[in-house]
Amino acid sequence: MATAAEDRAVDWTTLRTCFGERFSQSQAVRDHHGRAETFYPAMPPDAVVYPLTTEEVATAVLFCKDRGIAVTPYGTGTSLEGNFLAVRGGLCIDLSRMDQVLRVSTDDLDCTVQAGVTRKQLNMELRDTGLFFPVDPGADASLGGMASTRASGTNAVRYGTMRQNALGLTVVLPDGRIIRTGGRARKSAAGYDLTGLFVGAEGTLGIITEVTLRLYGQPEAVSAAVCEFETLRGAVNAVIQTIQIGLPVARIELLDPLQMRAINGYSHTAYRECPTLFLEFHGTPAGVAEQAETFGQIAADNGGGQFNWATRTEDRTALWEARHKVHYANLALRPGCQAIATDVCVPISRLCDCIEETQRAIEESGLTAPIVGHVGDGNFHVLMIFDPNSADERARAKALSERIVEIALAMEGTCTGEHGIGLGKKAHLLTEHGAAVEVMRQIKRALDPSGILNPDKVLDL
Amino acid sequence: MATAAEDRAVDWTTLRTCFGERFSQSQAVRDHHGRAETFYPAMPPDAVVYPLTTEEVATAVLFCKDRGIAVTPYGTGTSLEGNFLAVRGGLCIDLSRMDQVLRVSTDDLDCTVQAGVTRKQLNMELRDTGLFFPVDPGADASLGGMASTRASGTNAVRYGTMRQNALGLTVVLPDGRIIRTGGRARKSAAGYDLTGLFVGAEGTLGIITEVTLRLYGQPEAVSAAVCEFETLRGAVNAVIQTIQIGLPVARIELLDPLQMRAINGYSHTAYRECPTLFLEFHGTPAGVAEQAETFGQIAADNGGGQFNWATRTEDRTALWEARHKVHYANLALRPGCQAIATDVCVPISRLCDCIEETQRAIEESGLTAPIVGHVGDGNFHVLMIFDPNSADERARAKALSERIVEIALAMEGTCTGEHGIGLGKKAHLLTEHGAAVEVMRQIKRALDPSGILNPDKVLDL
Repeated sequence: MATAAEDRAVDWTTLRTCFGERFSQSQAVRDHHGRAETFYPAMPPDAVVYPLTTEEVATAVLFCKDRGIAVTPYGTGTSLEGNFLAVRGGLCIDLSRMDQVLRVSTDDLDCTVQAGVTRKQLNMELRDTGLFFPVDPGADASLGGMASTRASGTNAVRYGTMRQNALGLTVVLPDGRIIRTGGRARKSAAGYDLTGLFVGAEGTLGIITEVTLRLYGQPEAVSAAVCEFETLRGAVNAVIQTIQIGLPVARIELLDPLQMRAINGYSHTAYRECPTLFLEFHGTPAGVAEQAETFGQIAADNGGGQFNWATRTEDRTALWEARHKVHYANLALRPGCQAIATDVCVPISRLCDCIEETQRAIEESGLTAPIVGHVGDGNFHVLMIFDPNSADERARAKALSERIVEIALAMEGTCTGEHGIGLGKKAHLLTEHGAAVEVMRQIKRALDPSGILNPDKVLDL
Repeated sequence: MATAAEDRAVDWTTLRTCFGERFSQSQAVRDHHGRAETFYPAMPPDAVVYPLTTEEVATAVLFCKDRGIAVTPYGTGTSLEGNFLAVRGGLCIDLSRMDQVLRVSTDDLDCTVQAGVTRKQLNMELRDTGLFFPVDPGADASLGGMASTRASGTNAVRYGTMRQNALGLTVVLPDGRIIRTGGRARKSAAGYDLTGLFVGAEGTLGIITEVTLRLYGQPEAVSAAVCEFETLRGAVNAVIQTIQIGLPVARIELLDPLQMRAINGYSHTAYRECPTLFLEFHGTPAGVAEQAETFGQIAADNGGGQFNWATRTEDRTALWEARHKVHYANLALRPGCQAIATDVCVPISRLCDCIEETQRAIEESGLTAPIVGHVGDGNFHVLMIFDPNSADERARAKALSERIVEIALAMEGTCTGEHGIGLGKKAHLLTEHGAAVEVMRQIKRALDPSGILNPDKVLDL
C-alpha cells in the first residue's frame, strides 16, 4: 500500500468530479479529520469526501482500491483510541451527511438508519413513537461509528451494547462490493454472523453505511437516584450484589470522591464528595418501586447512606448531564491538561479487587485520576489528567494506563470494555487473545488483501 | 479433498494407537453417527473418535489435515438439517465424552463446560447453586452442538439464543491450532468478535471444544398458563401485542388445533383442540402477578378464553414435557411416517400474515402438518408428516417446505430461526443473504483452505 507521502501524488480528479463540493483537500478540513480528542498526535488525511449514499461510499472505496490508497471512515470523531486517525494519509470518508432515518417500525421495535445519524438525533426523531434507542456512550456519536467500535455506555447493563442491538448492516467492502448482513427477524441461524463480525471491527473490514437497530418501548416509569457510601468497597459490593440477584437496573454508575469533586466544581452541584452511585430504574410504576426498595436494602447492608431521588424528568436530565460531562469536569481540575481514559472490564466478582488495586496504582503514579464507570458490567474508567508539556507526566500516564490493563487482564478481564483497540491497544489485544489474533489477521487479509481499509488499526499485519 | 471412497484407503494406525478403544470403525458405530432423525439418507463416516480433551481433538484434526480427510464434529445427533452427516465420509469426532463442567461461578453468573455437556446435565449440576442455563431447544442437545447451530428454543424470547449466551469458546481450527475467543468480562471491544463467528458456523470453521456460558438466577417465582383462543389470528395478535408492549414473558408458544389434537393423543391430556398459547412468566412474586394480569387483559381483548394456571412445579413440567414431545406426538398422528420441520422466523408485525399464508399453503399441499412455535420471536415450525415410501408425499413435503421459506423471505424473515443451514438450506441462504454469502465463503477459504471441516455444509465452495 502507498504511504502517506505517495498518496499526495494521487490524481484526485475522478473523485473531485464525482463529489463536487463534497470533496475537499482544504487544510482546515483535513486537520479537522485528523485530530482526536485524546493524546494522539494529529494525523490528517490527504482528502475528505462526504458521501450521501452507500453507492457513493462504494465509488470512493473503489477509487482508492484501484490506486492502493488508504481509506479511513469517520463519523463524529468522538472515539477515544485514535480509531479514525489517518495514519497513512489517504482518503477520509466522512459519513456525517448520511444522516437519514430510513425506516422506523413501531410494531417491530426496530429501525434502519444511515451511518451518520447520531444517537441523539435518532432519539429526537423517535420521541413521538413511544420508542427509544438505549445505547448511550456519553458523546453524541454516530450510530455507524458506535457499531464500528462496539460502543456501549451507561445503559448497557440493562439493554446490552451495540453487539446486541445492531440487527443488520449495509457494508461496503474493501473492493467496493456492497453487502447486507443480518436482517429484521429477531433471530436467525442462517450462515455466519457477519453482523457480529463487522460490529467492533473499527472499519478495518468494511465501511458500515446503514444500521438496522433494535428499539425499546419508553419505560412507563423511570426513576433515578444518587446513593452515597462510606467506602468504595461498600459501593462496589452493593453493585455486585445488585447484579448477582438479577435486579434489572437500567443504569448503575460508580463515581469516586475525586470524581464527585470534579463534578461539583464543573456542574455547580453540591454532592457529598464520597464514593457515590448514580442509578436509574426502568419499568412499570410497581416494578420500579419494587426494584428501588430491593436496591435500598442492598445499599443499607453495605453502608449506603443518603438516597436522593430524582423522579422528575428535569432532575434526571441534570443528573445524567453531570455524569456525561465528567471528561470536561476532570479537565477543569487542572486547566490546560489533557486526559487519557482507560476502560477495562472484569468479571463482576473481581470488580472490587480490580478497583482497589487500580487505586493503589493511581496513588503510586502521583497523577490526578478520578474513577467513574459502568460498574454493573464490571467496566470502569480511570481518567488520567496530565500536562501535555510534561514528558514525565505523559510517561507516567502511559505507564499507569498499561498497569491498569495488566491488573484487569490478570483478573480475566478485557483491556477495553467499549473504546476499542484503535492504535493504542494492539499489544494488549495480543496479550488478551493470544493465538486468536492470528485468526483475526487471516480474516482481515481475506477481506482486505491490499490492506487499504483503516490501516494499522486493531491489528498489525 | 479426498472423497469418501479414497478415505477408505486411509491408514488409520496413528489415530487407532492414540485413541485405543476410543477409536472405532465398527459398522454399528459408523451407522449410528451417519443417521439423522430427519429425512436425510444415512451418510456414515469412515471412522469415529471420542476425544476427552481439546488437545486430543487437535490431534485428530491434524491427522486429517495432513491426509486431506474430511472431519465432522458430532454432539448428540439431534440437529435437524443434516448438520453432522458425513457427506464425504472421513472422520467423525464425537465430543460426547467431553462431558465435564469445568467451572461454575455463582458470583459472576457464568460457567465453562466441555462441548459434550448437555443442557439437562448442566442444569442438573447447577441445581443447588440457585442458577440455571435457559436456552432450551427441546432436545437434550450438547452445549457445543447448540453453540455450533446457534440454537434457541422456547426461552429465547426472554433470555436470547446461543448468540447472546455464549461468552467465549475454545476452538480447534482446521489446521489443529487451538484458540480461545471471547472471555469472562460481560462486554469487550477488543478485536473482532470471533465468538460470534464460530457460534452458528456449524463446525465448518473450527470445532468448538469448550464453551463459557452466561447463567441466570433461578427466578423467585415462575408460573405457567395455557390460554385458549377462538381464532389463530386472535392468538397471534395477543402474542404480537405482548411483545410490542415489552412484557418480559419467559415463554410464549403457539399451537394450532391439529397440534393440540396430536398432544392430547400422545400425552393423554384433555386440552380443547383450538388455537392455544402456552406461556411462562419469571420474576418476583409481584412481578409475575403483574405480568400475568397484563397478559390476561391482552388475551381477553383478542378473544382469549379459558386461562388455566400451572403454578406447581410438576404441573409446569408436565405442560412443557407435552410441548417438547410434539415431534413424537405428530409422528403418532400417522404411524410409520416421517416429519420435516421448517423453522422460519419473521418480524413480529408480519407473524399473523405469515402464519395465515402458511396455513393456506398447507391446505393446498394436502399434507398433515401441525404448527407450533416460539412465536414471541416471530419463529414457528410447520411439522410436515409424510410417508417415506410415497415419492409423491415426499415431493409435496419438499415443495411445501420451499414454499414456506418463500413466504417468510418475502416478509423480511429468515429461512431458519434456529435449525441452521446444514445440507438442506444452502440455496435459501443465497436467496436470503445474496452477495454476503461470498464473504462467508472468503472466510471459510481463509480459515479452512483445504475444506476438510464439515464439508458441504452451510456453503458450497
